[in-house]
Amino acid sequence: MIDSVNNEKIVYFKKLREAKYIKDAGKYIVETEHLVSEAYKAGLLESLIVENSSDFELDVPRIIVSKKCMEKISLLKNAPSVMGVVKLKENNTIKGNKVVVLDNVQDPGNVGTLIRSSLAFNVDTVVLSSTSVNIFNDKLIRSSEGTIFNVNVVVMDTLKAIDTLHKMNIDVYYADMFGEKEVSEIKPLKYALILGSEGQGISERVKAKADYGIRLDMCDKCESLNVAVAGSIIMHSWR
Amino acid sequence: MIDSVNNEKIVYFKKLREAKYIKDAGKYIVETEHLVSEAYKAGLLESLIVENSSDFELDVPRIIVSKKCMEKISLLKNAPSVMGVVKLKENNTIKGNKVVVLDNVQDPGNVGTLIRSSLAFNVDTVVLSSTSVNIFNDKLIRSSEGTIFNVNVVVMDTLKAIDTLHKMNIDVYYADMFGEKEVSEIKPLKYALILGSEGQGISERVKAKADYGIRLDMCDKCESLNVAVAGSIIMHSWR
Repeated sequence: MIDSVNNEKIVYFKKLREAKYIKDAGKYIVETEHLVSEAYKAGLLESLIVENSSDFELDVPRIIVSKKCMEKISLLKNAPSVMGVVKLKENNTIKGNKVVVLDNVQDPGNVGTLIRSSLAFNVDTVVLSSTSVNIFNDKLIRSSEGTIFNVNVVVMDTLKAIDTLHKMNIDVYYADMFGEKEVSEIKPLKYALILGSEGQGISERVKAKADYGIRLDMCDKCESLNVAVAGSIIMHSWR
Repeated sequence: MIDSVNNEKIVYFKKLREAKYIKDAGKYIVETEHLVSEAYKAGLLESLIVENSSDFELDVPRIIVSKKCMEKISLLKNAPSVMGVVKLKENNTIKGNKVVVLDNVQDPGNVGTLIRSSLAFNVDTVVLSSTSVNIFNDKLIRSSEGTIFNVNVVVMDTLKAIDTLHKMNIDVYYADMFGEKEVSEIKPLKYALILGSEGQGISERVKAKADYGIRLDMCDKCESLNVAVAGSIIMHSWR
């Protein structure tokens, strides 16, 4: 059992909570039994980190550490008794007929929630623009409830994604309160849907390259919806 | 200008960030120009607290304080230059034909997002069960984007709310993955929709008193959706 927070493994795990180390190492840490189990089912779990009091095990190497060490590694207020080292999956290929593109979406909770909805409503690929939150962000993974391990998530520049989608003969829609089509007017069998950041919406450059704006009708004095809600309503409508 | 963080007004404002003082005082503090402006438009703003560098004003008393004082009062990582003291609105009456009941929903972000969607999709009243997060929770208000000031939010026990709704001849639905009706099968003109906590769902006691379970069809291996997403899809569908 590792007891000291200065042990080299603990120091290494602690580093694996930072973006630059994650990118170099190609692996990151997830917390709680639930998320670790989901990563394992998806074939992405490299090793388990468990508190000495826990009897949790899976068919991967198991590193036993003290409560103090778990607290050192954890980003949560209350450190869980189970964590795992997970392989960073590198997907480069947009697959399928239903694609959601998150253009510069910064809030990790919204991105995680959208990934969760994507799986529920048969979306094949989620493109996360290079300017969006990191794919291995802890809050993103928690909000996705581990669905991120089962969704084809591609990190790509939004304009490049639009080019690729057009080559695949997929029409590109963007959610916008002034969009020319209301979501319930159409039900495309193939689609790409771009969702923008809540503050700024979608840039003119992206709009100019995309095909149609999609709006959701709502009450007169309402300005907008949460982006995860708006995106999920469209995915549900076109599922 | 108030410069000292030990000034009695600053100490009082700091206390107004805690639930027990808020309940006694019947007022609470909101942060950022946007939320303060929304509270003002809804007639709920009592006074402004502004940093000495800010020239923001509205037609209410204005208390000028130092940056240090703003930091003392703020719950945000970066204190804004504008805050406001807002009246705690006490609504006791369920009004209208479209009602959403949040039964023991703890996550303030989800509750705020659901309140935002309620306004967008013509819901007249949101009932927050006594066991849910506090109505004046800072994150709840931020997630609602200030829409909370314009929605009739009633704090009431869920079982009592069901009795009241039945007396109003409103059918009570609850969102549940095993619900007997799929959301798109029906479009009730009058409805109450109960949403439960993500972890535990809706209790058997509540289900027994309600009228119908409503489900959202999704992919086979999917277990659930975020509660704010599921609730918003149903509200959108029945708007």
